Amino acid sequence: MQQGYVHVYTGNGKGKTTAAIGLAIRSLGAGFAVYLGQFIKGMKYSEIVMLEKLSEELGSSRLEVHQYGRGCFIRREPAEEDKKLAQEGLGQALAAMVSGRFQLVILDEINVALHLGLLHEQEVLSFVEARPQQVELVLTGRYAPQALLDRADLVTEMQEIRHYYRKGVEARKGIER
Amino acid sequence: MQQGYVHVYTGNGKGKTTAAIGLAIRSLGAGFAVYLGQFIKGMKYSEIVMLEKLSEELGSSRLEVHQYGRGCFIRREPAEEDKKLAQEGLGQALAAMVSGRFQLVILDEINVALHLGLLHEQEVLSFVEARPQQVELVLTGRYAPQALLDRADLVTEMQEIRHYYRKGVEARKGIER
Repeated sequence: MQQGYVHVYTGNGKGKTTAAIGLAIRSLGAGFAVYLGQFIKGMKYSEIVMLEKLSEELGSSRLEVHQYGRGCFIRREPAEEDKKLAQEGLGQALAAMVSGRFQLVILDEINVALHLGLLHEQEVLSFVEARPQQVELVLTGRYAPQALLDRADLVTEMQEIRHYYRKGVEARKGIER
Repeated sequence: MQQGYVHVYTGNGKGKTTAAIGLAIRSLGAGFAVYLGQFIKGMKYSEIVMLEKLSEELGSSRLEVHQYGRGCFIRREPAEEDKKLAQEGLGQALAAMVSGRFQLVILDEINVALHLGLLHEQEVLSFVEARPQQVELVLTGRYAPQALLDRADLVTEMQEIRHYYRKGVEARKGIER
């Protein structure tokens, strides 16, 4: 069994969630089993639609997709319900990671969940500590805290050099959501 | 029909090709048709295996995947055959882009093909100019030239903050290839 590593995709540029999803596709192509948990969002974004369809075809032993959000953006202070869902999600992901069933575990937008206070830094660091050594673990989202970066084997900062939202382009189906 | 834009994913960090593939998955989930052309590589990387399988299931009207390389890395000077394949690939991709059949067109590793001299900058700029306005066009790879960055609507630099290859980890199936 090959040694796994911890990746963090952070920064303010486009491409963090999509890079994690592309890695899921690559891993599936290699015959691996993939667990994807998505914090915060909860809406049925187009990538979730496609991954759920893939999961149906391949079977949940090859691909599990879960969303731990309420299906709406969190504005201002998160509600207790948001925290509860995030913490339950982290617990489910932990159970999946230590089960030995998955070679790749992705926690999408977990850094934002941390930033918003839905999760505590220590909980996430403990999650990373609990990783079986053969599991590849990917954590995405802006605002990754330094303590997490310090524990990662691979860190990519997706840096915005130019973004069309500055021209007033809103999030579009199939491209941003 | 929604307005399309030009994306460039460049830089030395992990996540450029995977971000493009994740965007393909998102677009497919939204019902779009996707054309992916990959320069340089040509090897049957795991993501290509998975995308070809998806293409079989969804049909080639929804997803076309092409590789324009010889299936081996180019070391030192590229051969005439490498240039010929890259230029034929660009021609095929152009025909696909202007056909009106695809909402998303991805030219993976085209920046590296430029850097290695398989394609001329002016050819690629002309390709970008030929984009029908409803097509979303994504160009990936290190070493994107400034003239291309200037014409892009969205540029993300995947910046390597830390990479495990510096610890001696080689490219692994399902993760890098």
